[in-house]
Amino acid sequence: MTALKKLSKISLVAMLGLVAAIDPALAEGPDAEVQYILNTFLFLVCGFLVMFMAAGFAMLESGLVRSKNTATICLKNIVLYAVSGFMFYLVGYNVLYGGVEGGFIGSFSLWGPDDAAALGGDFSGGYAASSDWFFQMVFVATAASVVSGTVAERIKLWPFLGFVVVLSGFIYPTIAMWQWGGGWLAEMGFADFAGSTLVHSTGGWCALTGAIILGARKGKYDADGRVMPIPGANLPMATLGTFILWLGWFGFNGGSQLALGTAADAVAISNIFINTNMAAVGGTIAAAVLTQLVYKKVDLSMTLNGAIGGLVSITAGPDTPTLASAFLIGAVGGVIVVFVVPLLDKFKIDDVVGAISAHLACGIWGTMIVPATNADTSFATQAIGVVSIGAFVIVTSAIVWFILKATVGIRCSEEDEELGLDRAELGMEAYPEFGRGSQTV
Amino acid sequence: MTALKKLSKISLVAMLGLVAAIDPALAEGPDAEVQYILNTFLFLVCGFLVMFMAAGFAMLESGLVRSKNTATICLKNIVLYAVSGFMFYLVGYNVLYGGVEGGFIGSFSLWGPDDAAALGGDFSGGYAASSDWFFQMVFVATAASVVSGTVAERIKLWPFLGFVVVLSGFIYPTIAMWQWGGGWLAEMGFADFAGSTLVHSTGGWCALTGAIILGARKGKYDADGRVMPIPGANLPMATLGTFILWLGWFGFNGGSQLALGTAADAVAISNIFINTNMAAVGGTIAAAVLTQLVYKKVDLSMTLNGAIGGLVSITAGPDTPTLASAFLIGAVGGVIVVFVVPLLDKFKIDDVVGAISAHLACGIWGTMIVPATNADTSFATQAIGVVSIGAFVIVTSAIVWFILKATVGIRCSEEDEELGLDRAELGMEAYPEFGRGSQTV
Amino acid sequence: MTALKKLSKISLVAMLGLVAAIDPALAEGPDAEVQYILNTFLFLVCGFLVMFMAAGFAMLESGLVRSKNTATICLKNIVLYAVSGFMFYLVGYNVLYGGVEGGFIGSFSLWGPDDAAALGGDFSGGYAASSDWFFQMVFVATAASVVSGTVAERIKLWPFLGFVVVLSGFIYPTIAMWQWGGGWLAEMGFADFAGSTLVHSTGGWCALTGAIILGARKGKYDADGRVMPIPGANLPMATLGTFILWLGWFGFNGGSQLALGTAADAVAISNIFINTNMAAVGGTIAAAVLTQLVYKKVDLSMTLNGAIGGLVSITAGPDTPTLASAFLIGAVGGVIVVFVVPLLDKFKIDDVVGAISAHLACGIWGTMIVPATNADTSFATQAIGVVSIGAFVIVTSAIVWFILKATVGIRCSEEDEELGLDRAELGMEAYPEFGRGSQTV
Repeated sequence: MTALKKLSKISLVAMLGLVAAIDPALAEGPDAEVQYILNTFLFLVCGFLVMFMAAGFAMLESGLVRSKNTATICLKNIVLYAVSGFMFYLVGYNVLYGGVEGGFIGSFSLWGPDDAAALGGDFSGGYAASSDWFFQMVFVATAASVVSGTVAERIKLWPFLGFVVVLSGFIYPTIAMWQWGGGWLAEMGFADFAGSTLVHSTGGWCALTGAIILGARKGKYDADGRVMPIPGANLPMATLGTFILWLGWFGFNGGSQLALGTAADAVAISNIFINTNMAAVGGTIAAAVLTQLVYKKVDLSMTLNGAIGGLVSITAGPDTPTLASAFLIGAVGGVIVVFVVPLLDKFKIDDVVGAISAHLACGIWGTMIVPATNADTSFATQAIGVVSIGAFVIVTSAIVWFILKATVGIRCSEEDEELGLDRAELGMEAYPEFGRGSQTV
Repeated sequence: MTALKKLSKISLVAMLGLVAAIDPALAEGPDAEVQYILNTFLFLVCGFLVMFMAAGFAMLESGLVRSKNTATICLKNIVLYAVSGFMFYLVGYNVLYGGVEGGFIGSFSLWGPDDAAALGGDFSGGYAASSDWFFQMVFVATAASVVSGTVAERIKLWPFLGFVVVLSGFIYPTIAMWQWGGGWLAEMGFADFAGSTLVHSTGGWCALTGAIILGARKGKYDADGRVMPIPGANLPMATLGTFILWLGWFGFNGGSQLALGTAADAVAISNIFINTNMAAVGGTIAAAVLTQLVYKKVDLSMTLNGAIGGLVSITAGPDTPTLASAFLIGAVGGVIVVFVVPLLDKFKIDDVVGAISAHLACGIWGTMIVPATNADTSFATQAIGVVSIGAFVIVTSAIVWFILKATVGIRCSEEDEELGLDRAELGMEAYPEFGRGSQTV
Repeated sequence: MTALKKLSKISLVAMLGLVAAIDPALAEGPDAEVQYILNTFLFLVCGFLVMFMAAGFAMLESGLVRSKNTATICLKNIVLYAVSGFMFYLVGYNVLYGGVEGGFIGSFSLWGPDDAAALGGDFSGGYAASSDWFFQMVFVATAASVVSGTVAERIKLWPFLGFVVVLSGFIYPTIAMWQWGGGWLAEMGFADFAGSTLVHSTGGWCALTGAIILGARKGKYDADGRVMPIPGANLPMATLGTFILWLGWFGFNGGSQLALGTAADAVAISNIFINTNMAAVGGTIAAAVLTQLVYKKVDLSMTLNGAIGGLVSITAGPDTPTLASAFLIGAVGGVIVVFVVPLLDKFKIDDVVGAISAHLACGIWGTMIVPATNADTSFATQAIGVVSIGAFVIVTSAIVWFILKATVGIRCSEEDEELGLDRAELGMEAYPEFGRGSQTV
């Protein structure tokens, strides 16, 4: 019955299509097997797009850190994708779907999805469980990717990966179960179509607690609290990363329709695609124009984060807005990015890549604005979801960071920070031949 | 009825399939809803591939400019993609499809595509209008991307974006309407399957007028008119960009079949895929071999442009050639690239990335050669299309460039050009740690 | 009848589905035309993913060579993709499918795939031959890409491309015909689902013979046989390349199901996707942890190769393992990478990017372990396949390398190697502005 549970985030029209698919007797639309194939293929195509977002984060972050920490951030990004997938296999999948029956912590199984029914000719599952497994798995890595950028350039490698284990194996699956597993948030009517709160804010809260507990990089704030800009080493890489994220987001939001079996689904996904794009358009333009107006210079990294902020903003409800609303929702996201980045600096919260503003602040904004275009939701319910998930993630992530700090330590030594993590932890340089290379800037 | 208008570019066999989809009573092939879903999904998949071409252009151009202008070209590319999409929403979509009824300028609407019919069970539209909106929208950005590379390294940021507004909101939609909106070129029998002329030459003509009106970069030609090569800063980036463009082109040409609802469509798209690849193969090999023979050294950037030239060349008619013809059409495109680049230099037309040769010259070639493999076309009609679109774009783009020049100015100051646009306009460096960095080369 | 021949690598369940598609009278599952469309679209989507692997190899290799050889490796990668496609057209397609009738060498034709039957309403082919052509074509380039990384930094450009002509036009199609063309290996029961042996080991054997015959780069081994590490110039590029390969592998393995027309196919492909991912997860984690334990520093390039090694390892049988088995198969692949790299160094076999360990060693491992999860195979048959293909490729590739060596020469001069191939062969630099640039390191 987990398939039915996930319906919580499907619009009414699409729901009817899926119900039809589930019970062929009610079938409107194509025959059940064709629907089964199309639904499955949607998960696979959208899943590979979301998987590629891991590369997007890796490039974005490797472009925005200094060259002496670049190889480390590359390593972190590929290993965190691997670890997230492994933890989803080990724990997450069962927590997400099994959790409802067994209480808040799911049953434990090593055996993954089961598609025997469909092989026997029963297509009532609606899609291959393995394809859903794939799609849900790639979401986990996204949450973890958000964290790595913020805490870059001073966190130790293995403790960071330890945090990823807990985030991807426990924190994320728990709150995902509350909503997408059919838990109490879903029953309450919380709406978060593709995860502005569940994925992006979750990553963002972890990043925020991590940044506070870790402290700022040496030299980021001077004695008087002034911000010393630490520019990234490779902005075309960061640009590429943003484009890859933008591409991947079509899968992220589009695939969250969970079905392509009926014309209504196809319409819904198409609508999601254009709204997703329009929000990113709004975020990009808003951030570019605003930085020109405020700083008298257009800021490339702000503009890139504006695009991402726009994307995060629409993710809670890409199915209901008009194009004009989607543009506005995204544009506000771009504005948020431009103002939250200096705000964090005021509190000396050092976010290397701007992930807290783009993923957390815009994630909250995007979730809270859903009722403006979706009559089935309410601001109160949205606020309960945002606050309860925020509280849960703040508390659990802070506990994990503190335990790691108290035991193995999370911050590298001053010497290692000076030297760069690439030499200290990996014994290599990302760009050994380029100019000052990994020497201190 | 706009759906029917677009049939102008569909081959007869595919047409029958679509007619069948539009009138279920005539239906050959799968049932109307399955066709509707498949057609829609084709637009979405091919659309995201074309969207990713924006990243391809960004990487190609950021690899071929000097490091002191790299962040600016990155910024331009992401903002132009955003602006193009916004203008398509604001104006282009309505000009493209509404234009026929209302004369040459379309009606104006903020409300985008309407899929209510399909949600009510009427699948006669053939596909979700939103998915078509998405596919058409990403084409606009391609035309604009062509321009940015040519005029790089000396154009001011905001005036350039102003040009993009006019190009994407007025120039491109007008000529697209002439053909794909069912206008006079379509009625006359002009054939341009996926836009060798409509997209690539249009961008190319704008680039040409811009390059002439802007003038060459300082130091590109010495007092005696000799060419001083100004090498790009990051060739692997340019290579990546070319591969991304090659990938995206499968969506560009394949999606222009506009339907996947019948086996005939599936065959047509498959044929388009292999012809598109074969033409790029021809362009690549021709440019590599030719630069070896002519210059005694293989030239990487020429070879990359050869691949692109091959792709542009096949775009007017990827559906009708045999593989051998596709190879030859692309190979001639590669040859054109190698010879047009020095030709432009003779006229002191400074094209930073070679876009005029790859997109304009090959666009003309590709359009004119269509009758060689497609009996439904004629050289005369093709020539009328090429010339009329060329004249329209030359005149309108020159007017826009001149107005911008006379008002806000289009060329940066000599000091800014010397310093690099990254510092001058963005106040940042693309690679602050790498060697000479953004200092003058 | 070639379509039937290819069934050798399809699991029983999927086979029934395809047989049904081929004979509509037996049809279980959707109607024949819908199946035809879905099968065709699978080839196209998976094919473009595999095509993009060419970019992955290009980025991986351009990141792992020194900057003085970077433009050359970029050029090699795009030209080899073009040459492979051309040779597949000219020879490979006919050898692969025509070979069975005509003996070991196929008939020769310039006319490519024929889809007339489907256009006439006969869908018994199961899919558009053109789409299969596309999918098979991109596989050829993969085999060639494996070679270019190993022999980088000292091989002459044109002789290398000459080798690619023979590899893609003769060596690869011959062994592919033995199995996927329905030849003697298929009849014997050899199992290599997507090509651990046929594609990756074939490339790997060619790389091994090439590396031995070419000799090591100057300075790689000192007089006492100690290894002098020669670090790559751009590790984020190498990371990007690995992510692109990981993405492309979903197409590589998933598309090798060859059909999406039934629910059973959709389940099989979904299963292949998650197993493919899980094996890469295993390889990544194993290599990262192992290098930490063995060398006390995590090694980024080993970890990247670990991911690739995991992917190669699962490629022979991604359809039958459980997730746990897939993880283990991939993890062993990661371990193999970490141990084979220094082993090759012991024999002074200089593999610039680690392709022999990741593609050849893991390819053998992946092929030999298939019987552990697939009861229809035997270790003996697998061994016969591995050994016979190994012997054939070693002998033929060595002959080609020796002929090239004896005639045009394969190794660049000492001066050119010192200077870098970019200046010597291309007359350009990949990063002309970055620090020491292409000067000798």
